Amino acid sequence: MSEISTGPAGFAARLRAGHRTVGYWVVCDNALATERIAGVGYDYVCLDAQHGLVDHRALLAAMTAIDARGTAAGMVRVQANHPFWIGQALDAGARGVIVPMVDTATDAEAAVAACRYPPVGQRSYGPMRAGLRVGPKPAESDAEIACLVMIETAEGLRNVAEIAAVPGIDGVYIGPSDLRLAVGGSTSTDPAVDAEFDAAVRTVLSAARSAGIVAGYHCPDGASAARRLAAGFTVVSVASDLVHIEQAARGHLADALRPPGS
Amino acid sequence: MSEISTGPAGFAARLRAGHRTVGYWVVCDNALATERIAGVGYDYVCLDAQHGLVDHRALLAAMTAIDARGTAAGMVRVQANHPFWIGQALDAGARGVIVPMVDTATDAEAAVAACRYPPVGQRSYGPMRAGLRVGPKPAESDAEIACLVMIETAEGLRNVAEIAAVPGIDGVYIGPSDLRLAVGGSTSTDPAVDAEFDAAVRTVLSAARSAGIVAGYHCPDGASAARRLAAGFTVVSVASDLVHIEQAARGHLADALRPPGS
Amino acid sequence: MSEISTGPAGFAARLRAGHRTVGYWVVCDNALATERIAGVGYDYVCLDAQHGLVDHRALLAAMTAIDARGTAAGMVRVQANHPFWIGQALDAGARGVIVPMVDTATDAEAAVAACRYPPVGQRSYGPMRAGLRVGPKPAESDAEIACLVMIETAEGLRNVAEIAAVPGIDGVYIGPSDLRLAVGGSTSTDPAVDAEFDAAVRTVLSAARSAGIVAGYHCPDGASAARRLAAGFTVVSVASDLVHIEQAARGHLADALRPPGS
Amino acid sequence: MSEISTGPAGFAARLRAGHRTVGYWVVCDNALATERIAGVGYDYVCLDAQHGLVDHRALLAAMTAIDARGTAAGMVRVQANHPFWIGQALDAGARGVIVPMVDTATDAEAAVAACRYPPVGQRSYGPMRAGLRVGPKPAESDAEIACLVMIETAEGLRNVAEIAAVPGIDGVYIGPSDLRLAVGGSTSTDPAVDAEFDAAVRTVLSAARSAGIVAGYHCPDGASAARRLAAGFTVVSVASDLVHIEQAARGHLADALRPPGS
Amino acid sequence: MSEISTGPAGFAARLRAGHRTVGYWVVCDNALATERIAGVGYDYVCLDAQHGLVDHRALLAAMTAIDARGTAAGMVRVQANHPFWIGQALDAGARGVIVPMVDTATDAEAAVAACRYPPVGQRSYGPMRAGLRVGPKPAESDAEIACLVMIETAEGLRNVAEIAAVPGIDGVYIGPSDLRLAVGGSTSTDPAVDAEFDAAVRTVLSAARSAGIVAGYHCPDGASAARRLAAGFTVVSVASDLVHIEQAARGHLADALRPPGS
Amino acid sequence: MSEISTGPAGFAARLRAGHRTVGYWVVCDNALATERIAGVGYDYVCLDAQHGLVDHRALLAAMTAIDARGTAAGMVRVQANHPFWIGQALDAGARGVIVPMVDTATDAEAAVAACRYPPVGQRSYGPMRAGLRVGPKPAESDAEIACLVMIETAEGLRNVAEIAAVPGIDGVYIGPSDLRLAVGGSTSTDPAVDAEFDAAVRTVLSAARSAGIVAGYHCPDGASAARRLAAGFTVVSVASDLVHIEQAARGHLADALRPPGS
Ligand SMILES: [Mg+2]
Ligand SMILES: [Mg+2]
Ligand SMILES: [Mg+2]
Ligand SMILES: [Mg+2]
Ligand SMILES: [Mg+2]
Ligand SMILES: [Mg+2]
Repeated sequence: MSEISTGPAGFAARLRAGHRTVGYWVVCDNALATERIAGVGYDYVCLDAQHGLVDHRALLAAMTAIDARGTAAGMVRVQANHPFWIGQALDAGARGVIVPMVDTATDAEAAVAACRYPPVGQRSYGPMRAGLRVGPKPAESDAEIACLVMIETAEGLRNVAEIAAVPGIDGVYIGPSDLRLAVGGSTSTDPAVDAEFDAAVRTVLSAARSAGIVAGYHCPDGASAARRLAAGFTVVSVASDLVHIEQAARGHLADALRPPGS
Repeated sequence: MSEISTGPAGFAARLRAGHRTVGYWVVCDNALATERIAGVGYDYVCLDAQHGLVDHRALLAAMTAIDARGTAAGMVRVQANHPFWIGQALDAGARGVIVPMVDTATDAEAAVAACRYPPVGQRSYGPMRAGLRVGPKPAESDAEIACLVMIETAEGLRNVAEIAAVPGIDGVYIGPSDLRLAVGGSTSTDPAVDAEFDAAVRTVLSAARSAGIVAGYHCPDGASAARRLAAGFTVVSVASDLVHIEQAARGHLADALRPPGS
Repeated sequence: MSEISTGPAGFAARLRAGHRTVGYWVVCDNALATERIAGVGYDYVCLDAQHGLVDHRALLAAMTAIDARGTAAGMVRVQANHPFWIGQALDAGARGVIVPMVDTATDAEAAVAACRYPPVGQRSYGPMRAGLRVGPKPAESDAEIACLVMIETAEGLRNVAEIAAVPGIDGVYIGPSDLRLAVGGSTSTDPAVDAEFDAAVRTVLSAARSAGIVAGYHCPDGASAARRLAAGFTVVSVASDLVHIEQAARGHLADALRPPGS
Repeated sequence: MSEISTGPAGFAARLRAGHRTVGYWVVCDNALATERIAGVGYDYVCLDAQHGLVDHRALLAAMTAIDARGTAAGMVRVQANHPFWIGQALDAGARGVIVPMVDTATDAEAAVAACRYPPVGQRSYGPMRAGLRVGPKPAESDAEIACLVMIETAEGLRNVAEIAAVPGIDGVYIGPSDLRLAVGGSTSTDPAVDAEFDAAVRTVLSAARSAGIVAGYHCPDGASAARRLAAGFTVVSVASDLVHIEQAARGHLADALRPPGS
Repeated sequence: MSEISTGPAGFAARLRAGHRTVGYWVVCDNALATERIAGVGYDYVCLDAQHGLVDHRALLAAMTAIDARGTAAGMVRVQANHPFWIGQALDAGARGVIVPMVDTATDAEAAVAACRYPPVGQRSYGPMRAGLRVGPKPAESDAEIACLVMIETAEGLRNVAEIAAVPGIDGVYIGPSDLRLAVGGSTSTDPAVDAEFDAAVRTVLSAARSAGIVAGYHCPDGASAARRLAAGFTVVSVASDLVHIEQAARGHLADALRPPGS
Repeated sequence: MSEISTGPAGFAARLRAGHRTVGYWVVCDNALATERIAGVGYDYVCLDAQHGLVDHRALLAAMTAIDARGTAAGMVRVQANHPFWIGQALDAGARGVIVPMVDTATDAEAAVAACRYPPVGQRSYGPMRAGLRVGPKPAESDAEIACLVMIETAEGLRNVAEIAAVPGIDGVYIGPSDLRLAVGGSTSTDPAVDAEFDAAVRTVLSAARSAGIVAGYHCPDGASAARRLAAGFTVVSVASDLVHIEQAARGHLADALRPPGS
């Protein structure tokens, strides 16, 4: 593995090789903050276009901000599994996509096809911003881009072995909120289905191992990311800027109102 | 003081009455996060149009987000001491302005004039968004809007007594970074001028007391806000979303990379 | 019905219960005006993402403006019947969606699935802004969100009985311009097909009644809304800000140019 | 006057010649609606950068929309009497500016200087968008641009004769809300000062006549515009899109809720 | 052909009649520049929503800018072959769409259906901006809008005869970068597959002729556009603003650094 | 001079040392294009906030794009000589400002004061984006930022010796369009005043030499930049993206329409 380049250019190769890959999850359209976050040492910063505020304009601004720091790879959790949205993220310079709600091997094949140029896939050529940094040859670009698919539905969980076995899929990525609802939770954190949820997590991890690909996990904080790394996940995201800023504001208010001497 | 209404409408009255007033300082154009921050219990959220990213579009979005939560008052640290910028902040619905770089009593009089309608001042009428919530009568609007001026230059410090005595000024507000440079610091946190800086802070506090107005302080975190409250400041801002999100991202990364069991 | 809460939180329940529900239709990206409109007494304000200017950024701004007034429910006529677009509207805080161009029961089932969390549907969890106000539990959120489908094509008209019978559909909503073209009109207001059009309207209304759901109608002004209410429709929208502002400008010009004494 | 060209190019000449000039006042950033409004027959559409939402981006979009209809002249009520703001409006293609809060002849001279290129004034050259349509020679551009100053303060009223006499001023324009406060009103529509207000209006009109320039008036609707035209004002604006859309929404709701047969 | 109107209104008719039609390709969101480009004499300006930066907001701004010049027709290369995206481009006032990645006759039929109102197709009625200029009757609108489909995949090339024969398709349009990859190129300009590529071009041109429709070609500069016109293509785009501005900047730098006298 | 660092950090030092400094002038809000332009080899890219479209949002996006390439320094021609506008450009990360319309030594002193922190000047501390790259210590920041003032009015020309002698001014910069009008031109390129204009240019150049500072010139193309470099100017800008893209579009159209074989 010594030939994997450090820095953003080697991101997909390191991810595939199973290196520990820690990311930060951005849902806000806030390029100035993203520029700062991108410089603290994460391997990647993932921009959320599904549930976040990352439209195309925001995506370009955030990718540019990430590149201005030069150390993290930009990833995108795309709006949905559609070639236009995947292509747009990649044209903006993303070095990886996380595709939500993948239910079947057919879905996974579509995700791969959208990430890879012919003859491997059907990505359309027009790397508007990416051309400056990724590739630039199609085959090089394919090699430098990671394709992760989210396992977060009952159907996706049932089909995870087939999904993980689709050629070109680099990893499966657990969306715990949706997955908990999928196994019967009444809320996204419902402890009543802990057993079912933990079993589902083991199923996904095991499917990834059998297929020789990596497994990723969406975490609310660094400590849980550490636990998932210890459990065998190699790709962990810490989410999110929106939640963390609210937590910070809340914490500072408590400090400000604390009686002196307490 | 029992007749001061709770909620945003009574904000300026509570501030003038010397009630403890704790705010959060927003520099990012990030209305969704501002909406969340506005709901955690702060008395005000201050949008920074001088050094932050709060242009008019951002100002309207953020004020609307603050109002959607309904508990905090929106304030604006304006671009500069100019009637257009002060008026624009107030037209957007701000219940107070913090005017930077006020050096003289004349500057302070201009700030007041920009905040108040005739016959008190020269604010131009057109409360485009404010009309829904502040006032709506001119005299009521004047009463519901706080005017704070920043003491943060050598000249402002020399003139602080005269500035604080200007009728209509509701408070003086210390900008510690600029003030530390003003007293000779080589950086905005230079400890070599601690003595001069502390003397300057006492001068400002004392001028406020003599003039019967409040004193405010710009703080980097809740703990320092608590200390300033204990020292006699009644208006304290905790700054800022941009810095805090970077700190949070940094902290979570450290947690994620911490060896298990450490 | 006494237990239906007033205000936006009870909107979907009131709509389902057949209460008279009057809305205003916004096609412009103009949050300041939307904030004002949202305060005049409508039960809902519907933002048009299909033919209007409401992209995600505009949607968030408008939903925030509606919430800042606190009296109307925000609805969205979504871009198309796709889970991402429906989910994005709901994540922004919409309390109902109007799904255009629904042709078959299968289309209607897809619309329902996109509106409801598992196990009822397949909505993906991430209520970025909605979490502050709708639900927050998945089942509560499902209950607080109305799903209306538009009948406006020849195929949809043929299948309206099956569409109306799809579990989870709260109402059918007539798009008269498209429906008139669908029954053979040569323009969106062609009187030559009045008979066919009126028959189609009766068919839709009858299908809604048979299925025990409500019927909605898209109206150009308040007077026609009153007529549709009298005819049995319980959900009526008055459209639109873009047309009405042009009408107002035209009317004021005529007044300005009218000879004195006329 | 037969040589004054019709259409936007002759706007300033017609205004100066005392032709009846009727405008619509836009405060919203809503280019699509502005494009429609610009086509209904007004002589000008004025974009409000002082109290409205018209930042530079909005200004360019609105001016382009007005030009796309091709019949009305674009005007701008500028942020304040500063050469940058006046120049920016003119560079965007405005054929006239309305300068708020002009108190003295010196203020008026500054407004003129900002509108005219050397040797007449000090406008800086860079007609980024205007170059396509206005002028293009500096002297032609000067001739095609109207400069109106607002009389709306006590000081401005006192100095109106001197202001009106400043060479290059094409007209004085009454801002009635501010002017009513200036003459002692407790609100912008306070009837208690009707006598003082009416006297002030006569003073302004008379000063314009003495100076041989036109007088303008800011009106809330077409009927009052007709009255002001009849009284000798030749430039009347009908304001505004924001207010009129709220009125329209309110009116349609009343119609919708009116009992059948009433 | 004498009855084809000149100007944008006759654009589709001229294109269908095989008149030489030369366009400029815009990928940037830069309405001011687009307004200038639209005035230099091109028959159309095509806005790229697939690989470019043209979101809905940019589309409206650019279409307005094109209309403000009044000589070129606005076209849009849409995001993907989906009725919402095609409809949105047409509602904004586009007089033609170029639909990417059309692989089969079924794809082509879908593209046509999205461009035409019933009874010909299924376009939904709501010509928000287009209503001012295109049509306005549905059948007129259909006649004034050109529908071109891109042949740029291996599958599309195989099916080009069937695609070209689909009623309502006005032309096939070659995307050379994708097509070169499709015929086996290792880069978008790989000369190793020149023979295969040239054969593919002839196949497309021949299919167009057999079907009695026009053929279009995407060119990097004017000289290659001239060559394609000479070869029988009648619709040629010169791409793109992003590339050309970089080339211009590079060229001017070389000139600036050239030693004097060289 | 061997100790001057290469790259953006050494930009101001190289400029002061009289190194040849060639820049590109951007008036459009077009960060993607600016990112490309910033990589072709210019020493600086200057964003025009006076006559261009560079508002704060555009400024941040463009500065980030320039930094993402890493080779050019970002400069800003500010809106006007006001501390807020100068400070905002510097807070965004500009490594130099070009201040328009400087007429007197007092104007020049104000420009310097706005660029430098105390005790040298009065810049307010809050390097929101700049803190990541410029300085970060105040004195370092002062050293890394170039302050150029524009000589482009009759008054500025008369006072150029005094202006150039103001401590802290790094260079005078000729705005030829305004300067030509200032010396009596009837258009910005009027050849009738060539003699006066050339004399003015020599006066400025001579004043710069006497004061030991550099002289800059605003050029329409690379060839004229080369001529100005040869004449002793060391700072030359090539303007602008807006003009050059129109020229490119025009040129490609001529090529496309050229008869074959011509
Ligand atoms: Mg999920
Ligand atoms: Mg400060
Ligand atoms: Mg419809
Ligand atoms: Mg006024
Ligand atoms: Mg292609
Ligand atoms: Mg100049």
